Amino acid sequence: MAEQVLLREVGLRDGLQLVSTVLDTEKKLDWCRGAVAAGLAEIEATSFVPAHVIPQFADADAVAAGIAGIRGAQVSALVVNLKGARRAFAAGLTKVNYVVSASEAHSLANARRSTDAALDEFDLIVAERAAQGLSDRVALGCGVATSFGCTLQGEVAEARVLAIVGRLARAGADEIMLADTVGYGDPARVRRLFEGAAGIVGSLPLAAHFHDTRGLGLANVGAALSAGVRRFDASLGGLGGCPFAPGATGNINTEDCAFMLAAMGFATGIDLAALLRLRERIETWLPEERFTGALARAGLPKGFSPAA
Amino acid sequence: MAEQVLLREVGLRDGLQLVSTVLDTEKKLDWCRGAVAAGLAEIEATSFVPAHVIPQFADADAVAAGIAGIRGAQVSALVVNLKGARRAFAAGLTKVNYVVSASEAHSLANARRSTDAALDEFDLIVAERAAQGLSDRVALGCGVATSFGCTLQGEVAEARVLAIVGRLARAGADEIMLADTVGYGDPARVRRLFEGAAGIVGSLPLAAHFHDTRGLGLANVGAALSAGVRRFDASLGGLGGCPFAPGATGNINTEDCAFMLAAMGFATGIDLAALLRLRERIETWLPEERFTGALARAGLPKGFSPAA
Repeated sequence: MAEQVLLREVGLRDGLQLVSTVLDTEKKLDWCRGAVAAGLAEIEATSFVPAHVIPQFADADAVAAGIAGIRGAQVSALVVNLKGARRAFAAGLTKVNYVVSASEAHSLANARRSTDAALDEFDLIVAERAAQGLSDRVALGCGVATSFGCTLQGEVAEARVLAIVGRLARAGADEIMLADTVGYGDPARVRRLFEGAAGIVGSLPLAAHFHDTRGLGLANVGAALSAGVRRFDASLGGLGGCPFAPGATGNINTEDCAFMLAAMGFATGIDLAALLRLRERIETWLPEERFTGALARAGLPKGFSPAA
Repeated sequence: MAEQVLLREVGLRDGLQLVSTVLDTEKKLDWCRGAVAAGLAEIEATSFVPAHVIPQFADADAVAAGIAGIRGAQVSALVVNLKGARRAFAAGLTKVNYVVSASEAHSLANARRSTDAALDEFDLIVAERAAQGLSDRVALGCGVATSFGCTLQGEVAEARVLAIVGRLARAGADEIMLADTVGYGDPARVRRLFEGAAGIVGSLPLAAHFHDTRGLGLANVGAALSAGVRRFDASLGGLGGCPFAPGATGNINTEDCAFMLAAMGFATGIDLAALLRLRERIETWLPEERFTGALARAGLPKGFSPAA
């Protein structure tokens, strides 16, 4: 039997956060349903941030309420503080993802608090989950942004990233994700850092979040797979981009990543043809965005059949 | 000290063979000199095929004569039969690359002979090299095309590829390259097949030739590196494409591959800035071609410095 790999669709969150066209709530729910139907294991459907910070997510409560009725996949949301976590808990989500930045400079710019203060905030979120009696019902993921380098401060020490991983594991995270927020990671560092993290977290699942800014996204997935990682973020059509890296692409492309995993013999549960149809539909909603993807261009290899 | 990886620039050969604009000989030599100056370890500068088959290479003898004067890198050419090998020997090249197709269907379509007949032809080339007293002066590489699958016949048996590798090693090849001619390879198969080949060839160097048709090119480089491969083909700007795969890209992109290797700590001898300048110049010569490349779009990471 093929080994399972979980793909999380983050196009609705990471992908849309820099898209100027604000999609209406019904379209977002439609995308979410389509992603579930195509077999994605988890959908990060929105982000609980103040509407004045990212207008795209002004409807976060409505999206979360809408997806409560979607069955067949884990549906989650990103939160950046305790207030956001409370909104996510209130919406009835069963998975909530928090993020802390390993780069001090990025943490201050992105979350307006130091890395240590952001780690303290995670403790508050874990305590709030317990206080609300949700510890058995709501999984808490935590991402470590800029784990592989930072556009603001450059190098991020690997020892610092591993120390953060240890602290998050002790704090009660149910999943820890190392994120290459700006596309600085390379396969050697990816493998080293995930192997280091695996030695710290034991059986706690690790996840990887890569951007394809410098074309190494799928090579980094390959390296993370070698280090034992079995959970990956990806964005339909590679949607997204970073305002600090002109011409950069966004997250790794969901279709291409799903194809690679299937070709390697992993079971992802994903229907590639359905995924490509979903991509086509969403492309019509966002005509001004640049969609990436080799599979959409070249099609599947002759006679290709994914693992069961 | 960083471990060495050799990159071979094949843009002048694989890249140009489907480009309708015929570059004049002086431009080709200019490109070749630029690639040597940027630190590429080997340049495959032309292909000795009949001019009526690929008009782009009508000047193969002139290009070969012109590059005889270029110092600082190995300069090679592709040949598809004994006649081509004789022309390459006559031109004074010190490296000649032959290719045989593992797919019977591709061999018949591409070389108009069966795979076994193509292997027999390699024996004739090795014998001709010996007869001319060139065995110590001219290296013979041999590529195994469609090693990872074929657009015509689909699946190519791994056992067949490994049997061909064994035969080429016994025949006297100085380098054996597994080529993913149509972009069907995935990291799992790449690693498995190169590990299998390494077990057969002993200390004989293995090389890898990947196309990025389905976006897995650099992931496959990562997998081949894990299997011990230290020689790779790449094409400036990812130039090229396959007439049988509409919308497909060509070879893996030289700049992105060189960046990945440098980021991983390998020594390639390549000056990335010089390479990007060369790409810009060649792009002006071929305005109708689609150049790929994330590095050209996003630039180097902040504070990036390659291995010495």
